[in-house]
Amino acid sequence: MEKNLIYLVLLASIVALGFAYYFFRQMMKESEGTDVMKKIALHVRKGAMAYLKQQYKVVIIVFIVLALIFAVMAYFDLQNNWVPFAFLTGGFFSGLAGFFGMKTATYASARTANAAKNSLNSGLKVAFRSGAVMGLTVVGLVLLDIAVWYLILDHFVEDADATHKMIYITTTMLTFGMGASTQALFARVGGGIYTKAADVGADLVGKVEAGIPEDDPRNPATIADNVGDNVGDVAGMGADLYESYAGSILATAALGASAFMMTSPTMQLKAVLAPMLIAAAGVVLSIIGIFMVRTKEGAQMKQLLGALGRGVNTSSFLIAIATFVILYFLQIDNWIGISFSVIVGLFAGIIIGQSTEYYTSQSYKPTKKVAESSKTGPATVIISGLGLGMISTAIPVVTIGFAIVLAYLSAIQFDMANLLSAQNLGLGLYGIGIAAVGMLSTLGITLATDAYGPIADNAGGNAEMSGLDPEVRKRTDALDALGNTTAATGKGFAIGSAALTALALLASYIEEIKIALVRIANAASDGLVAVGSKMMDAEAIKLASFGDFMDFYNVNLMNPIVLVGVFAGAVMAFLFCGLTMNAVGRAAQSMVEEVRRQFREIKGIMQGKAEPDYARCVEISTKGAQREMLLPSLLAIIVPIVIGVIFGVAGVMGLLIGGLSSGFVLAIFMANSGGAWDNAKKYIEEGNFGGKGSENHKATVVGDTVGDPFKDTSGPSLNILIKLMSMVSIVMAGLTVAWSLF
Amino acid sequence: MEKNLIYLVLLASIVALGFAYYFFRQMMKESEGTDVMKKIALHVRKGAMAYLKQQYKVVIIVFIVLALIFAVMAYFDLQNNWVPFAFLTGGFFSGLAGFFGMKTATYASARTANAAKNSLNSGLKVAFRSGAVMGLTVVGLVLLDIAVWYLILDHFVEDADATHKMIYITTTMLTFGMGASTQALFARVGGGIYTKAADVGADLVGKVEAGIPEDDPRNPATIADNVGDNVGDVAGMGADLYESYAGSILATAALGASAFMMTSPTMQLKAVLAPMLIAAAGVVLSIIGIFMVRTKEGAQMKQLLGALGRGVNTSSFLIAIATFVILYFLQIDNWIGISFSVIVGLFAGIIIGQSTEYYTSQSYKPTKKVAESSKTGPATVIISGLGLGMISTAIPVVTIGFAIVLAYLSAIQFDMANLLSAQNLGLGLYGIGIAAVGMLSTLGITLATDAYGPIADNAGGNAEMSGLDPEVRKRTDALDALGNTTAATGKGFAIGSAALTALALLASYIEEIKIALVRIANAASDGLVAVGSKMMDAEAIKLASFGDFMDFYNVNLMNPIVLVGVFAGAVMAFLFCGLTMNAVGRAAQSMVEEVRRQFREIKGIMQGKAEPDYARCVEISTKGAQREMLLPSLLAIIVPIVIGVIFGVAGVMGLLIGGLSSGFVLAIFMANSGGAWDNAKKYIEEGNFGGKGSENHKATVVGDTVGDPFKDTSGPSLNILIKLMSMVSIVMAGLTVAWSLF
Repeated sequence: MEKNLIYLVLLASIVALGFAYYFFRQMMKESEGTDVMKKIALHVRKGAMAYLKQQYKVVIIVFIVLALIFAVMAYFDLQNNWVPFAFLTGGFFSGLAGFFGMKTATYASARTANAAKNSLNSGLKVAFRSGAVMGLTVVGLVLLDIAVWYLILDHFVEDADATHKMIYITTTMLTFGMGASTQALFARVGGGIYTKAADVGADLVGKVEAGIPEDDPRNPATIADNVGDNVGDVAGMGADLYESYAGSILATAALGASAFMMTSPTMQLKAVLAPMLIAAAGVVLSIIGIFMVRTKEGAQMKQLLGALGRGVNTSSFLIAIATFVILYFLQIDNWIGISFSVIVGLFAGIIIGQSTEYYTSQSYKPTKKVAESSKTGPATVIISGLGLGMISTAIPVVTIGFAIVLAYLSAIQFDMANLLSAQNLGLGLYGIGIAAVGMLSTLGITLATDAYGPIADNAGGNAEMSGLDPEVRKRTDALDALGNTTAATGKGFAIGSAALTALALLASYIEEIKIALVRIANAASDGLVAVGSKMMDAEAIKLASFGDFMDFYNVNLMNPIVLVGVFAGAVMAFLFCGLTMNAVGRAAQSMVEEVRRQFREIKGIMQGKAEPDYARCVEISTKGAQREMLLPSLLAIIVPIVIGVIFGVAGVMGLLIGGLSSGFVLAIFMANSGGAWDNAKKYIEEGNFGGKGSENHKATVVGDTVGDPFKDTSGPSLNILIKLMSMVSIVMAGLTVAWSLF
Repeated sequence: MEKNLIYLVLLASIVALGFAYYFFRQMMKESEGTDVMKKIALHVRKGAMAYLKQQYKVVIIVFIVLALIFAVMAYFDLQNNWVPFAFLTGGFFSGLAGFFGMKTATYASARTANAAKNSLNSGLKVAFRSGAVMGLTVVGLVLLDIAVWYLILDHFVEDADATHKMIYITTTMLTFGMGASTQALFARVGGGIYTKAADVGADLVGKVEAGIPEDDPRNPATIADNVGDNVGDVAGMGADLYESYAGSILATAALGASAFMMTSPTMQLKAVLAPMLIAAAGVVLSIIGIFMVRTKEGAQMKQLLGALGRGVNTSSFLIAIATFVILYFLQIDNWIGISFSVIVGLFAGIIIGQSTEYYTSQSYKPTKKVAESSKTGPATVIISGLGLGMISTAIPVVTIGFAIVLAYLSAIQFDMANLLSAQNLGLGLYGIGIAAVGMLSTLGITLATDAYGPIADNAGGNAEMSGLDPEVRKRTDALDALGNTTAATGKGFAIGSAALTALALLASYIEEIKIALVRIANAASDGLVAVGSKMMDAEAIKLASFGDFMDFYNVNLMNPIVLVGVFAGAVMAFLFCGLTMNAVGRAAQSMVEEVRRQFREIKGIMQGKAEPDYARCVEISTKGAQREMLLPSLLAIIVPIVIGVIFGVAGVMGLLIGGLSSGFVLAIFMANSGGAWDNAKKYIEEGNFGGKGSENHKATVVGDTVGDPFKDTSGPSLNILIKLMSMVSIVMAGLTVAWSLF
């Protein structure tokens, strides 16, 4: 029976977690090096754990409050009883994914540095396999969470009608996506503020003013900087991608449940399982890719990239084949078309990755031009970097545009005559959702390439601080530079998949509105409920299509309420970025002042005779991040609720589209500007345009510093913001239809 | 008979142009000062005229090509025969408004400097009255153009049905809006690139590297910089606001024609005349305000602002009263409600102005914080300025959101039960359009406050270069600082009104689609045409409402085509800014290199013994601007056509909404960041945080330089981009319905 296929998902999850544990044990067997190295690693580990503890304290309060609100809503029949629990598990597992990844990273950095003493290849292996721990933990936990919840709900939910039961189950599971998004947003914003405050602070005073190298142990902010890589780039990213991965699978499952509702319960079940099975296959095939990543000693940047590329490409290719096989065996309607939708997603991801690499790597013209603009000072570096970032939005957005159209058309077998019929709209949206699953199906390995970057970065820090041979630092630098490019590519994936997933979530929103309306109609004495300006009964509501709902609520572009919503969404993206940018600015300023104070007051610090007060800097970053992360994160939760209660369904859908379109483009802009600035600086450090220490170099350091919050705080938080706003709207749908003013 | 009221509009236009001429003659009577002053003014005037000539040469080609395309379309019955001519006149008058304004400005600067020798008040009077020439020329020409075209079309167009004739007339007149927008975009982009390339180049080498003051005659780029103020900030702004003003009136007239189509021909005529009459009253009442602007000697910033504020507030108050009187005498349906819609627009403009002032003036906390962040170097200045700009988008966007809702509700008498009925939707959109007219009704005086800024700036340049007493420079500086704030406020108006006008244009787009469909249906042998997936005849199309069309073409938020359009719109805004930013960067870089070369190669330049080669710098700016302005401007014309031909009506409406929402927010962000950086620098120059020449000052100069293209090139062009894309879509509607792929 098809239902048992869910156990395959469970199995894939166990395989992923098993390999994660295996890679972890392997890494732990490596030596951590000298006592100094161990001590530094311990410092960083402690700082990171202390931060995470502090952060979880704040986040737990938010989770408790939200869970209580959901409980109250469930009590008043505005939501079902499973929601508070699903929400909490989503948050818990998302946090756990970040925690495990970070724990691994803090153990791995000194070991990577130590392995790099032997050879580049050894260093790469340790760092990359440690990154793989994170990649596999994330995908493993997502699949575990999904499979277990599915089994629980399938067992306990009682509904005579199998198709409605499936819709109930899938929309309930979306709530755990909301838990994951909430956790992810706090992790990204808090971690992002932490890491960039430390990084900016350390760079501004250390590199620019005092003229000491990066990670110099005399710099009081250097430990905080290294802690930051772990809490922001590792823990934050882990929670983020847990959310992306879970979100895309769950949204597609929910769409499958509604698209195939009219076909048959079996077909519906298959449509729900398909994204989960593709993801499960992706996990196993990612592990094969991971084993393929190795390089020869003396490898150049190009060969290193080649090594990673080989792993990712092999996985992608195998997943493409596996998709056809899975959908063929499932015998899902139009299996060829839907398989092509998955391939469209995979391809779009690759194109976005390539375009990101083109715009942010110093091997290509755009970043070189930014480096060249340093000849006329920091202002032109900033102008050209901003210009580059804005222009770089075109290819990814056009790619996603094509992907949307192709995934849609492919899923409806190019039935142009009935392009938007009720049936085809459901199918087509399912195609868009499953394209997002395709794009993220390689996450096990792409996340490994992404998470290994900060590990290599920290290894370099450790090597520098513990005074290892410069050759070691050179090797870790090579690994780190590579990490910059893979990180930018990873962000491209996260943003691209977010756009597709967010579209799928729009459909889930309407589905949830439907459920809420049915609930209210059933509770009403006359069995009727107001749907826009019509009074309808439960049966009529169940039969209405997505298009009908657009009609009932006037969700069209001539409705001023929709337009007000779109404006609100656009402004949310900018406001959110502005708040997080300013947060980094403020926190960094305190850091700069503290470092200057220590240089001034602690005698002998510059001669290496006195030890700086590292702990004070760690504390400043921690406090700054905690203080600053609340407002932007809470806004993301509160605004959709307020818009829903005032402007109703039309306003909310406007908000989500406005937030999605502006946020998507803004996120790419910020990620790519930031990446290009960073690498323009690296390009000069490689000896071009005057090299290290020149005026040109200083100008690019300014660019890099501005880029830090762009690419590691505001930009990557946007894709979570987009989805969190959708998730909040979905969960609060009951409130919207029951009470909205318009 | 009501029709004769159009002569009142003609009369107001003549009054405006008469007073413009009067102020011009008055200004010309003032002495231009010493021979040196005259010589410098002549240099600037010649450079500006040479640039404008060059620019018109390029623009004329574009206009001829477009007019030919329209002629071909008219030949194939895809447009009517008036369109090419209306298009050309719109472009011609828009250019003329910029030309007159610039001519006045270049005559006024030396005279302002000379008058400032006597007293601050004399300086203010000359500069402000010269600004008024521009303000009154713009509004006068718009009203002239509208009144004359109305009379022509009313006379020549033959249509038995009076109501359809009116729709035909008003939509045809929109084409001249497209001419104005096209001209304005070239003027803003070309002028913007020119002025900022010169400004950035002059500042970077002069102020930062060589350490000589602004406008020092030893700086080879200083003449180009002063020319730039005229071609960018005066001619560009004139064309821009001509377009905004004309656009808002024409869009509202077109909406009036369709909203009152079902009521009666007389009521329809009144609705078409109402925005024109309100604008006409605004012109006359602005003149009264202009006469009220004067100040005492020794006036502080506050009193100067007070003097301008008094003028604007008086005008606003009188216009509010006049609106009620006009609409009462017109006896238009629900005259009270519609009057309130006008007031909503007026108020929204004032709130946006206040919020702009708060975020960009050094008298308030936000800009002071940016100045303070200079303590930690240029990077934190950039971060905090970007953060400020992003946050500052919230108030204007929320204000516009409220204005949309209130203007709509007020126009439909708060008929919440039928919020979106066909009748109410038309009325409500008319309310939104007329709110934009209300917001711009004070343009005669607000544009005067805006245009006087660059005149004062140039006066300062003239005073510096001709070695006048430092006291004179201090006075012109006071005038200039004030100009910064009024310029920022002016941009707020332009952007806010653009958002409202763009919404009104959406309705005109549907109206034009309707006309095109009727034309095709009438030409078809069976009298039927495909409307979305339906076949309809001309009568059915004429009777269909806006909402029906949303339905026919599935212009709702679940349609992936709409979403692809929204993405395309969002990316257009960013791409456009990126291209213009890079254009400025590139042009500035050539300028920097040229100035450095002259400092190096022309001996004695720094001792004031040899004269720099000013002409070479003027040439570099001119060439750079011409080369760089084409691509972004043409994109704005081509993309809507391509989207229309591929994705049809749903795609185009998505594009327009995506461009509007992202562009609106992005424009505010860029304008306010730029304004704040400029004033943060001024705040330090006033002696705070180390004052002129300190490291902090240098850091804010970097901010100011980045802000230059933000606030004077990319940002202000966005509001034109938004409307031009709408206008192009409207004019090309025939193509879209005849040929689109989807």
